[in-house]
Amino acid sequence: MAEKLIGNAIIGQSGGPTCVINQSLVGVVEEAQKHAEIKNILGARHGVQGMFKEDFIQLKSADPAELEAVAITPSAGLGSVRHKVNADDCGRLFEIFKKNEIRYMFYIGGNDSAETAHIVNGLAREAGYEFRIFHVPKTIDNDLRETDHCPGYGSAAKFVALALMGDNLDNRSIPGIKIDIVMGRHAGFLTAAAALGRKYEDDGPHLVYLPERPFSLEQFATDVERVYKKLGRCVVAVSEGIADENHEPIAKKFINEVDSHGNVQLSGSGALGDHLAAFVKKSLGEKTRVRADTFGYLQRCFPGCVSEVDAAEAREVGRKAVDYAMKGNIDGSVIINRLSEPGKGEHYMSEASLTELENVAKYTKSMPDEFINAEGNNVTQAYIDYALPLLGKIPQIGRLY
Amino acid sequence: MAEKLIGNAIIGQSGGPTCVINQSLVGVVEEAQKHAEIKNILGARHGVQGMFKEDFIQLKSADPAELEAVAITPSAGLGSVRHKVNADDCGRLFEIFKKNEIRYMFYIGGNDSAETAHIVNGLAREAGYEFRIFHVPKTIDNDLRETDHCPGYGSAAKFVALALMGDNLDNRSIPGIKIDIVMGRHAGFLTAAAALGRKYEDDGPHLVYLPERPFSLEQFATDVERVYKKLGRCVVAVSEGIADENHEPIAKKFINEVDSHGNVQLSGSGALGDHLAAFVKKSLGEKTRVRADTFGYLQRCFPGCVSEVDAAEAREVGRKAVDYAMKGNIDGSVIINRLSEPGKGEHYMSEASLTELENVAKYTKSMPDEFINAEGNNVTQAYIDYALPLLGKIPQIGRLY
Repeated sequence: MAEKLIGNAIIGQSGGPTCVINQSLVGVVEEAQKHAEIKNILGARHGVQGMFKEDFIQLKSADPAELEAVAITPSAGLGSVRHKVNADDCGRLFEIFKKNEIRYMFYIGGNDSAETAHIVNGLAREAGYEFRIFHVPKTIDNDLRETDHCPGYGSAAKFVALALMGDNLDNRSIPGIKIDIVMGRHAGFLTAAAALGRKYEDDGPHLVYLPERPFSLEQFATDVERVYKKLGRCVVAVSEGIADENHEPIAKKFINEVDSHGNVQLSGSGALGDHLAAFVKKSLGEKTRVRADTFGYLQRCFPGCVSEVDAAEAREVGRKAVDYAMKGNIDGSVIINRLSEPGKGEHYMSEASLTELENVAKYTKSMPDEFINAEGNNVTQAYIDYALPLLGKIPQIGRLY
Repeated sequence: MAEKLIGNAIIGQSGGPTCVINQSLVGVVEEAQKHAEIKNILGARHGVQGMFKEDFIQLKSADPAELEAVAITPSAGLGSVRHKVNADDCGRLFEIFKKNEIRYMFYIGGNDSAETAHIVNGLAREAGYEFRIFHVPKTIDNDLRETDHCPGYGSAAKFVALALMGDNLDNRSIPGIKIDIVMGRHAGFLTAAAALGRKYEDDGPHLVYLPERPFSLEQFATDVERVYKKLGRCVVAVSEGIADENHEPIAKKFINEVDSHGNVQLSGSGALGDHLAAFVKKSLGEKTRVRADTFGYLQRCFPGCVSEVDAAEAREVGRKAVDYAMKGNIDGSVIINRLSEPGKGEHYMSEASLTELENVAKYTKSMPDEFINAEGNNVTQAYIDYALPLLGKIPQIGRLY
């Protein structure tokens, strides 16, 4: 029987928002509300920013119906923050936690949030202050270590898969070359999801470029030309994070650019796609129909096509964090274990479990080799088997020819 | 009792695809299948291109289940085409129609398609060739005359509304200035849809710029600054077609641009948003968080958030075209009449009816004045009352603060 630790709980959300990060928030709150030893449940507005300012929302008596409405709302309901926390900040945080009698912390975020939790936890241990701190994972990039996949990824992946499903149909209807730039920073998981809506043999994306493989403009143009000559059209998914053999981001070549007036700096958001399109047009002839779209922020908070699997798992990791906190002097990062084996036709199943904070903190992971084809310009069936169950239901499509 | 006209029917799809253009196609086919006087139902691949090449798909005995799968699939199932038809082309088309014993034509498209139908119809009349020709409306731009609204608009508008709903939540979570560039050419209807997901007083988009009002960069920056100072954030929807007081498109100022290598031409797809963002950053200070997204082709064929109302109406205009064709020597463009009055709390109702081809051909319409606010930087409640029922069900959102 665990010893009861009486005190307040603090919850924060950090980093880029997702469609299901509020499911995790509500999972924590609804579970924490059940336990008398958690006196106040403090929601910190905008993550560490709200912790520094002691800008808290009281959640102990939050109405279940209101919480449910928040749970199904994309983006961080408490507000988020991009502030990278250093060791000094962690010291200040710990002082604020002690002052506010905080004994439980639930921090929903990526590897940086796990790192913050890890450092604060170390300070509490040194000070002999019993403090149960949990990192609750979220990221559309799917780049956290230890966990099979990250809450938030399935919904963003579904958006990208549906976007490419539609774009492939569009491209089949009015043929040409189409380039789509997908988020995901230095991990290719989100771009890989472009392939998850393919149904027929000739469906696009026909080419998928990931940051895990060196990108060559010339090879890219050659690949596109080959597909275009065969099918009369070509749909390409490209990660925003593609880099050359020296790990220099391709996008970097196009920023700090001056426009025709000689004085305006490009934000760079649409630049990578526009320049890849221009390069292909130059290679294949000016009359070739080439278009580029950069999906941008749409990918992470689009309501209305959230993955049911992702939503349920995000809720569960939140609930589970509180479960663990109630079990004794434990801390850690909640992870998802897959119980079914991908590609074996088994019904998808998963469970939440726990790992050490330091296993998730700081470093990220990339697409494993078995998910990328030999040519480095597409995903493998192993990736599709891994990722498809995470999307939940996807629309069905039909063809006349 | 109408005299029976025995012959073949031809169906084509033209222009930019939509999420529901195949509903209209299937509406035509399923209705035409019922009538013995229609011998063959020929689907022309890629619109007039397939008509010229006599590249037809036989649809008389198409399987209902397969048709249903096509109906719910975005983009033109027969393939589409961007070829602008001239008078000579129409003469050639008419010869091909006579040769193939075509007595019924159903052409699904925008004002250009109505124009093609109108010209071919004139040729048939001159030649004393009985020919029942119908234009079936579709466009995400919602810019066809006579009809209350266009099939295809509701679904694209829903995508834009949901995109802004998500983007507003994202922006509230991590505040800054966000600019979203929306399709719609010279009509502001699709950009206006950005406002349809607003729920709370301070929800974005806070500013909406339409091609119907002259756009000034300076006024734009002043507007953005005012909102940003008040709310600490600002979400803006901008039509790709915005133009200055001399009707010169703003986007035109940024194309034919040379990059830092001095040799690559921008496709321009992301350029408008990037330059508006750069301009705002320059006005408000380099440290201001400003981002821009250009929604691009995602807007017209995104599966998974199709408007149920739009889908049903698109189906109905297809069916109705065949209905009219069976009623005698009639031709025309099918339109949608709204039976309920916007903003009166009445249950939304509409019916399909018919207008002359020349009433829809050639010219387009823009947003009426009563849909645009006095300052020219937002939509009115009258617009919202008009457009909201066309979206069908939209996701509900909730807030903690």
